Parts: sequence; C-alpha cells; structure tokens
Amino acid sequence: MKIMRTLYHLPLCPFSRLVRIALQEKKVEFRLVEENPAERRVEFLTLNPAGEVPVLVEPDGVAVSGSGPICEYLDEIFSDPPLIGESPIERAETRRLVAWFERKFNAEVTVKLVDEKLHKRLQRRGEPDSGTIRAGHANLGQHLDYIVYLVERRRWLAGERITYADMAAAAQLSCVDYLGDVQWAAHEPARDWYARIKSRPSFRALLADHIAGAPPPKHYADLDF
Amino acid sequence: MKIMRTLYHLPLCPFSRLVRIALQEKKVEFRLVEENPAERRVEFLTLNPAGEVPVLVEPDGVAVSGSGPICEYLDEIFSDPPLIGESPIERAETRRLVAWFERKFNAEVTVKLVDEKLHKRLQRRGEPDSGTIRAGHANLGQHLDYIVYLVERRRWLAGERITYADMAAAAQLSCVDYLGDVQWAAHEPARDWYARIKSRPSFRALLADHIAGAPPPKHYADLDF
Repeated sequence: MKIMRTLYHLPLCPFSRLVRIALQEKKVEFRLVEENPAERRVEFLTLNPAGEVPVLVEPDGVAVSGSGPICEYLDEIFSDPPLIGESPIERAETRRLVAWFERKFNAEVTVKLVDEKLHKRLQRRGEPDSGTIRAGHANLGQHLDYIVYLVERRRWLAGERITYADMAAAAQLSCVDYLGDVQWAAHEPARDWYARIKSRPSFRALLADHIAGAPPPKHYADLDF
Repeated sequence: MKIMRTLYHLPLCPFSRLVRIALQEKKVEFRLVEENPAERRVEFLTLNPAGEVPVLVEPDGVAVSGSGPICEYLDEIFSDPPLIGESPIERAETRRLVAWFERKFNAEVTVKLVDEKLHKRLQRRGEPDSGTIRAGHANLGQHLDYIVYLVERRRWLAGERITYADMAAAAQLSCVDYLGDVQWAAHEPARDWYARIKSRPSFRALLADHIAGAPPPKHYADLDF
C-alpha cells in the first residue's frame, strides 16, 4: 500500500484552504483528515505543539506545520510550477501579499465575520456582535478595493503569474463567501480575478465543502456568480 | 556618495529587532530610520501600504516589507551564512519556530506585557490591566519552558546551527527583558541560550536602545545577567 501525504485541516480554515490549493496546483497527492484543534488531541499535539491546523505529514512521518512553512516547503521540493516567484524581489512581493491576507485580512475580515457569524453559533458561544460584523464588512470593502487596485495593474496579485498571494487571498475570501458576505457587484475587477481562481481545478474541492448546520449560499460553488 | 540600505524600524518592535539582528549576522551595512506607523506618513505608506515596520529599502529604492519577507529575501541574496537551514525539512523547522515566536509568543506574551506596561503609559492610554499582565507572565513561563525543552535537545532552537528561529525568539524576549519581566533564574537552560545570543556582536545595537521616559533595568545590557 502506498503511503500518502496527510493534511490535517479544518474545512473553513483559510490557512488549511491555502495549503489544499497549493497541493493541488503542484499536483501532489494527499489525503485530508479533519482535525479539531480545540480537542487538544495528544497525537496531534505531538505533530504540532502549537496545536493548530494545517499540518502536513510526509510519507515518512515527518510533520510540517503552518501554512507559511508548508507553502515554502512545497515550493522547495516541488519547484514546478513555482508559486512564489522567480527573482528575490518578486518573491518578496508574493510573501508581502501572503502576509497581508493571512494576517491583516484574516484579523480584519475573516475572524470578524466567520467567527462571529458562524463559529459562535455552531459552538453555542452566544449571540453574534453586530458591531464586530459591521467592522468586518467595512474592512472587507477596503480589502476588495486593494485587490481591484492590484489587478488593474497586474494580471495576478503579485505579478504576471499566479502565486501563493492569489491563493492566500482567495482562500480567505472563499471562507467569507461561504457566508454570502462578499459584495462582488461593487468590485467587478476583484470578481473577475476571483472567478479566474475559482474556476481552476485546484479550487474544486473547496467548493464542495459543506459545514453541517450551515449550508453555503447558492452562488458559493457557482463558477458564474 | 554610497547609497545605503535603509531599515525603517521602531526600537522596541520585536519584528524590527529580528531584521536588525539578521542584517548584522549577514554583515550587511544599513542605516536605521525610526518610523512611527501611527503617524500614517504618506511617504511611508507608499513604501508599505500595510503601514507597518520593519521596511527595508534597497539602494535602488525598492522596498521589502515585513520581517518574514525581509528575512527570506536576505537569505536569498546573502546566502552566507545561511540562517534558515540546509534541507527543506530543516528549513521548515526554522520557519515553524519563527512563526511560533513571531505570532504565538508575540500575541501571548510581548503584546500583553510591552503594550500593557510600557506603550499604554507612554501613549497615555490609561492604566495597565493587571489581568492582562498576569496572563502575559503565565504565558511567558510556558514559552521559557518550551525553549528549555528545545535547547536540552539541540544546540540551537531549530538544530545544530543558529538560525532565524533563535533570532526571532531572542528579539521577542529582548523586548520583554527591557521591562525586566523575564524570570531567568527559574529557567537556567533558557538563560544560557539567551546569554549565547546576547553576547553576539549582532545583538549589541539592540542593547544600546533606550526609550525616552522608560529606561531599561540594570541587567538589560549586561552580558552576565
């Protein structure tokens, strides 16, 4: 029996989603295992003492933890296609934008909307806070403006080729889009860019994710939204 | 006149400190410019739309933003000494630990102590919250335990050679140590490791930093603390 790579993930975790897209783009076979870090499973903590998904376990059992380290690792061992960039400055630009979406967008938008509207309800942690949700929506508008700014100057977010920057941004946006919270009509160039990513085979599995008790809106998996 | 690299930084910003150590370890000449991101200076926002330090500006004017992108960039253009590691798995381990200290330690310890005890007072944002400070101290103890766990198994945090993992951890700890808040005596192996980093020439400039109105404790710059 062939021993496969294993990715420990959560379906609506944007960091896990980035790695799922990256593995698909690089045509790496893997199996998905859903891991709820809140359970603090001892075997999982042995793999990643930080107790967070995503964790990629190699066929020999070695674990690589965190979306940043996993994406860098994948680009080093599967260099075709390159997903960071060619020159050091191009690579710095990709990494700047990955950090923008994985830190800034995640804190200012994804956590405020997905955690407040979905996880709070599913985990029975009380009523969503309308002020937090309003702030998340306002921030989302600004981030969509920034995506528009970038794609009006470049074919993809970091330059002329698709990179982890596009995948990190789309991974975050896909979680918010699962709630139906993205005002695509007000940001046409961002929608066109997202449609290009969404129609890639690497995105397909994400669009099939369904959270029990919280179905996505009709347009979520629609490639012509 | 030779045009030098410029690093926009803040003295007690742990991310800026990591880059300062990295530049010194790689023997790269640079000049430091203090930038207060809260001022939202237009010229600075042009360099880094995220409006955060550190930002490294190359002699040709190109900017590289964020400690992660800057450290990766420096390792690509100045490969000697290598500060991430040799094999892809070693490099993944360095990056995992850098993320551990720059995200987890920073949120659980540095922000809770440095922001609460120092920045709040200097910026007249009210009284420090004793619950937050208590949590910061408790978390700090756990992180020091983790450093002890690592250095009892390896010469440096990520393996047998010094890497960005050591520098990221020491950069965070140096900010907390500026407050005099590290219980070194209760964590001897962590102190021995920190003493090794602290005595490196690359650390010297950090130990000379003085914040107006908040002098460091006597042991802060002491190599035999």
